Amino acid sequence: MRASRFFISTLKEAPSDAEIVSHKLMMRAGMIKRLGSGIYTYMPLGLRVIRKVEGIIREEMNKAGAIELLMPLVQPAELWQETGRWDKMGPELLRLKDRHGRDFALQPTSEEVVTDVVRTEVKSYRQLPLNFYHIQTKFRDERRPRFGLMRGREFTMKDAYSFDRDVEGMQKSYETMFNAYVSIFNRFGLKFRAVAADNGAIGGTGSHEFHVIASTGEDALVYCPNSDFAANMEAAEALPLIAQRGAATQPLTKVSTPKTTKCEDVAKLLGIGLDQTVKSIALTVEKDVDGRQVRENWLLLLRGDHELNEVKVTKVPGLKDFRFASEAEIQEAYGTVPGYLGPIGTKQPVNIVADRTVANMADFVCGANEADYHLTGANWGRDVAEPVVADLRNVVEGDASPDGKGTLAIERGIEVGHVFQLGTAYSAAMNCVYLDEKGQPAPMQMGCYGIGVTRILGAAIEQNFDDKGIIWPDAIAPFELVLCPMGYDRSDLVKLETDRLYAELQAAGVDVIVDDRGLRPGAMFADWELVGVPHRVVIGERGLKEGNLEYQGRRDAEATAVPAADMLGFIKGKLGK
Amino acid sequence: MRASRFFISTLKEAPSDAEIVSHKLMMRAGMIKRLGSGIYTYMPLGLRVIRKVEGIIREEMNKAGAIELLMPLVQPAELWQETGRWDKMGPELLRLKDRHGRDFALQPTSEEVVTDVVRTEVKSYRQLPLNFYHIQTKFRDERRPRFGLMRGREFTMKDAYSFDRDVEGMQKSYETMFNAYVSIFNRFGLKFRAVAADNGAIGGTGSHEFHVIASTGEDALVYCPNSDFAANMEAAEALPLIAQRGAATQPLTKVSTPKTTKCEDVAKLLGIGLDQTVKSIALTVEKDVDGRQVRENWLLLLRGDHELNEVKVTKVPGLKDFRFASEAEIQEAYGTVPGYLGPIGTKQPVNIVADRTVANMADFVCGANEADYHLTGANWGRDVAEPVVADLRNVVEGDASPDGKGTLAIERGIEVGHVFQLGTAYSAAMNCVYLDEKGQPAPMQMGCYGIGVTRILGAAIEQNFDDKGIIWPDAIAPFELVLCPMGYDRSDLVKLETDRLYAELQAAGVDVIVDDRGLRPGAMFADWELVGVPHRVVIGERGLKEGNLEYQGRRDAEATAVPAADMLGFIKGKLGK
Repeated sequence: MRASRFFISTLKEAPSDAEIVSHKLMMRAGMIKRLGSGIYTYMPLGLRVIRKVEGIIREEMNKAGAIELLMPLVQPAELWQETGRWDKMGPELLRLKDRHGRDFALQPTSEEVVTDVVRTEVKSYRQLPLNFYHIQTKFRDERRPRFGLMRGREFTMKDAYSFDRDVEGMQKSYETMFNAYVSIFNRFGLKFRAVAADNGAIGGTGSHEFHVIASTGEDALVYCPNSDFAANMEAAEALPLIAQRGAATQPLTKVSTPKTTKCEDVAKLLGIGLDQTVKSIALTVEKDVDGRQVRENWLLLLRGDHELNEVKVTKVPGLKDFRFASEAEIQEAYGTVPGYLGPIGTKQPVNIVADRTVANMADFVCGANEADYHLTGANWGRDVAEPVVADLRNVVEGDASPDGKGTLAIERGIEVGHVFQLGTAYSAAMNCVYLDEKGQPAPMQMGCYGIGVTRILGAAIEQNFDDKGIIWPDAIAPFELVLCPMGYDRSDLVKLETDRLYAELQAAGVDVIVDDRGLRPGAMFADWELVGVPHRVVIGERGLKEGNLEYQGRRDAEATAVPAADMLGFIKGKLGK
Repeated sequence: MRASRFFISTLKEAPSDAEIVSHKLMMRAGMIKRLGSGIYTYMPLGLRVIRKVEGIIREEMNKAGAIELLMPLVQPAELWQETGRWDKMGPELLRLKDRHGRDFALQPTSEEVVTDVVRTEVKSYRQLPLNFYHIQTKFRDERRPRFGLMRGREFTMKDAYSFDRDVEGMQKSYETMFNAYVSIFNRFGLKFRAVAADNGAIGGTGSHEFHVIASTGEDALVYCPNSDFAANMEAAEALPLIAQRGAATQPLTKVSTPKTTKCEDVAKLLGIGLDQTVKSIALTVEKDVDGRQVRENWLLLLRGDHELNEVKVTKVPGLKDFRFASEAEIQEAYGTVPGYLGPIGTKQPVNIVADRTVANMADFVCGANEADYHLTGANWGRDVAEPVVADLRNVVEGDASPDGKGTLAIERGIEVGHVFQLGTAYSAAMNCVYLDEKGQPAPMQMGCYGIGVTRILGAAIEQNFDDKGIIWPDAIAPFELVLCPMGYDRSDLVKLETDRLYAELQAAGVDVIVDDRGLRPGAMFADWELVGVPHRVVIGERGLKEGNLEYQGRRDAEATAVPAADMLGFIKGKLGK
């Protein structure tokens, strides 16, 4: 490519609505252009990166036996009603009506459509397993689109769907996709981590997220540096910090704690450690029992220094549909105001659930169910019945790894992929069945596998940038190499050598752009450093007179003189071609 | 590709809603799957064809200097309001509201968005010319979607937009695109014709349509076998069939023609040729003159055997916004009922426009403006004032070519591409200006260039099929070649030879599929003939024992024995590789 025939439009300053570095740099580099909130035109430079990302995904998906098709963006409501998602999904599902008033949705994913394809096309166990994928525009009407391509409304996603005869087959398909994702992210040249994720109703280890590691990431990833353990914060199991409960040594005592509603303040007031305090979180569960509406009170207990993990709460039997109790409900159940709740002496019956650590505490401090009072020396069994015990908290750095192989570390990541064992959630709802060897119908076991194609761009930049701009990994750079001739239009020597090298590089399959725009060196270099092309060769008269060109990698502090005759081989070496 | 790892699902019968052959065959071959009215999933086989079509388009567009980007599908109403298309376009523009109640459209084309990109990115004449294109999903909410991919609602289109400094530049960009289209359609391997088309407001020769020739095509294409002349029916100029008007020889006579309203019947009744009759078509034009609504009567005269061309009517000065007169208006202006109108003795003043041929007729027959009566021996000048003369009719086969180089022929075509000189229609409305050498702002001159990607599939099939199925041209076939082993699982000899040839063909860059599904020969051949793979090699034990394989082209009546050792070269020859 010649820059004079391409479209390059860089900016000194990012627009004021760009909040994070990847959004700023993509705007400045002219990779994307905002059309509306969360809606971007992919400019020529940005599109080149997208195409490379898509190309790698496509190759690895095909290699893994997945079959590409293309499902429509505009999807009839009827299918979404079959699975109930038409009603369950909020306004992020963009609904529209055609000229005849019929309801449609813009696809955010395609479970319904692919299941419809398979239920009509596949009849026999002989046709399974199958894995269909497409790389298609998606729309999600986010309440607050932001961060450029990170949380856009219109975006590109690769979504794949596997169909198997049984759970074993589904797990095999899942593993195949997991391995394909590892290959894909490795080929992108990005540092990433696959972490176990919660997979809702199905349970087990049937879901993993793929995160690009970046200190600016929204998600906390928990891992053990000494083992394979890795999970997102929602799914990372927290072991009890106290191996065994000590004996009670203190009497239960009501102490005055006026206007002291937080554990931190109670600890300070009483001169004790925060790890002796217990915080109480009141929940309400509403149930339909034989046609009557019944309200249950639940109280969760966490050590004062721990954070609640709401996903773990939903796993406690009976708490799937919990909500936090209102102040009125708290008054009714505990006879006091928030900040002074505790498990001892509630006004109404309350189901008590203690975090694993709390369950092993002795002589702890908790609310007295009376405003401005706490209890000290509280002990299980003696002062209050043994609680239900559950893992309720987020892990923290330094916690023991659940696999017993060391302590946990936490880093930040950006979720760019997700693999998920769906089981029969969709196939049962949509009657997607096959006939087995005995001619008996059985619902297919499904998996789904997504990669946020356009999000990869943002994540790659959050991981790879400096104060000059983007630093693309070779595999997904808009161009692998830029040739910067110094005086292309003025010096025959420079022009000749540039054209020669350009032709050689093209013939060798190097994705090269030659900057023939006639810019001054400073402006030219600044453009390509901002755009993030990973390799640069400068062709100048001075060097040429000694037979040399100058190579500089985007992360290199200085240029290296390379004999002109050796440059092709040198570049091929750098690019591993 | 191995068929066992691909998805092939053929049908004996097409669904009943498939009306035309391409739709039927695509459904039977499992290329597409209907999701809703005019909305299709592109199944793996169909998607392969689409990708090949897109690949050829992309290569030729890039070669022609166009630059690829990707504009969003969901576009804010504001831009469409700037050009007035938000109001002007009918319900085929699918409008929707996001969660905040803001208006958007699903793009049917992207003139507004690309003009917005360019007006903000391009400031100087130095940045021009520019040509941006994208290959993107489009949506047009057709009132009556049908014919499969021919008139779908969701479809894929390549649309390009050129921006130039002046008309000369625009014409050059237009010519470049025209030539690129010729290359593209040649590479598809389709018989096609580029025809001049009407381009509405701009006039001149600034618009061409590209048609795939097919007897089932909706459009009539006019061309001269002896010259370059080619136009669609709307734009094909009709010369007068009578070089010079003869002298009047008959007196004007009122004759009784009871219940004879059609020229054919009048000619029969009077025992004259249809070419002596003139048919009268009454139009109404409503105008606002100084705030008053004024109604004008217009009468168009065509020879009895000719057809009106409504596009040509709009070119007659004063008739841009014509409509056909109502019966009440006809009664008022002519004092009679339709079927007996004529230019002589109207009740109200009427503007008479005669087709070129009618203008040169003498002693003609026309309505008498009295029910059940016609006039014979009517003559211009003597019986009625000389009319305005215009080209009003459709040409017919055998008419003289407008370039004077022979006579016209007519064939049917399917429109798959359109190139169009837009001038400043969009740039002026959206203030898309550049600064010229003197620093003066001027609106850019634009062109737009579309190819219906998914429509190509339908058109290619309408041109290339037989009673067995589709016959794809090599360049856009889902696979170039199918290997059909007879007993892949039973015969080591067959398996070995199949695998050897498959590996060789793959290494030679042949897009080959091997049918390892274990079907019987009849079912296997029928599948591939239906799918339309253009080349087939059968590997059988009997042939192999003599060292032969069997080659058969999709159009060949019989197979040819080819020595196994020569097959690779033979196939490469067939594919021109």
